[in-house]
Amino acid sequence: MSYKITIIGSGNVAWHLSQALEDAGHSIQEVYSRNIDHAKKLCAKLYDAFPTDDLDFTESEADIFLVAVSDDALESVLTDLRIPDDAIIAHTSGTRPIDVLDLLFFHKGVFYPLQTFSKQRKISFDTIPLCIEASNDDTKKILTNLAKSITKHIYYFNSEKRKVLHVAAVFACNFTNHLMAISKEICDNEEINFQILDPLISETINKALDNDPAEMQTGPAIRQDVKTLQEHLSYLKEDLDKKEIYRMLSESILKMAKDRN
Amino acid sequence: MSYKITIIGSGNVAWHLSQALEDAGHSIQEVYSRNIDHAKKLCAKLYDAFPTDDLDFTESEADIFLVAVSDDALESVLTDLRIPDDAIIAHTSGTRPIDVLDLLFFHKGVFYPLQTFSKQRKISFDTIPLCIEASNDDTKKILTNLAKSITKHIYYFNSEKRKVLHVAAVFACNFTNHLMAISKEICDNEEINFQILDPLISETINKALDNDPAEMQTGPAIRQDVKTLQEHLSYLKEDLDKKEIYRMLSESILKMAKDRN
Repeated sequence: MSYKITIIGSGNVAWHLSQALEDAGHSIQEVYSRNIDHAKKLCAKLYDAFPTDDLDFTESEADIFLVAVSDDALESVLTDLRIPDDAIIAHTSGTRPIDVLDLLFFHKGVFYPLQTFSKQRKISFDTIPLCIEASNDDTKKILTNLAKSITKHIYYFNSEKRKVLHVAAVFACNFTNHLMAISKEICDNEEINFQILDPLISETINKALDNDPAEMQTGPAIRQDVKTLQEHLSYLKEDLDKKEIYRMLSESILKMAKDRN
Repeated sequence: MSYKITIIGSGNVAWHLSQALEDAGHSIQEVYSRNIDHAKKLCAKLYDAFPTDDLDFTESEADIFLVAVSDDALESVLTDLRIPDDAIIAHTSGTRPIDVLDLLFFHKGVFYPLQTFSKQRKISFDTIPLCIEASNDDTKKILTNLAKSITKHIYYFNSEKRKVLHVAAVFACNFTNHLMAISKEICDNEEINFQILDPLISETINKALDNDPAEMQTGPAIRQDVKTLQEHLSYLKEDLDKKEIYRMLSESILKMAKDRN
């Protein structure tokens, strides 16, 4: 099945999702962005999509409207958005419930790709989990077809569970990335090449994914190696932020180990 | 060159390092542990090593003594350790300086493998960075030979720089692992299979290693998506630890982004 799709948004998710859908044989009708230049930039990557900063799509031929804007912008976009009555609308947010879609829409869903997207980085969709929710069976079937055309990994979560998944994703993705950014800052300050940590980071992740990460914990905190903890905190003493993060995560490691025993 | 080596310690580092050295053609003479059963357990994995809980090695034939005990135990072990005058002693700690090795030892060094070791997990040494420091050129040469026999990645750091590297490693390895453990706990509580996060975690790490992780930051904090942050904090409200970690890391992400602009 091939669908006509309009993309609301031009951020990282809109950027990658629209191109993946086009590669899978669907046709992107329009791309909306509050900033028309952003819409044009994404349309330049697509076959024949029309860039617009107007949210009135009552005349659009699209079957499906995918709303991929930041969670903060979602409500205001939805207030102004007008689509044909028989079209499906789905947002791509992990945290917003399906109910955020206005009562004026008839065929509602969520189409949440569980991945981290950056514009400058190409990504293959076929391993990405797609989490679907729908207000009725027809919508569910169509969103499932759409998902199947780009990935083999389809999940059905209600809004409550999807939010929990998103919280878990923030810890496992956004926060781990930030810790690596901190680690790189520490290396940069002493002119140590961050790449020396590559094998350590790769093994840490492989070990955590192959096993229960709590069982795989190593380092001074779990060993209760007070001397090392003190030396590290003393090294970080001028950088209150990093010191506080070090202290808090070390305590949390020890607490989790104790709770599990 | 093949060396006779005695291993002081029977923890994760001693466990993997002794076997890797034997695989590389060296001979492990003795394995010391405060708990003789631990020494015996490791010796069972080795060709002909002698397990002992006695730190008097004045009669030992070993050329090199590798002290792989926890940083907290290091000083007390070194106080009691006796080795032949012409033997080399090296500890495997990231954080302890070379000077922790007593004045009574003549040929001193550090032999720090930058990796996370768990006994139940096999690991190939050849990609592991080995960080060397030595009190004289002969010792440096011999420790370099020893390192070369198990890895291609040899670095020379003084004690100050090695400590910084260890701090960076704690952030990039021990703390990221703990965040994955937290993420898994959140999933487990809602009966979500943690493995659904595999592609997200892998992509996060690949992206961070291929680029500057600070540039690759995604998620609600960097987007200043207040609504999502509030919803997540509200979901975590009963779990003060996780909530505080969420709040602190989100603030730190935003602060780093502002400091860089």
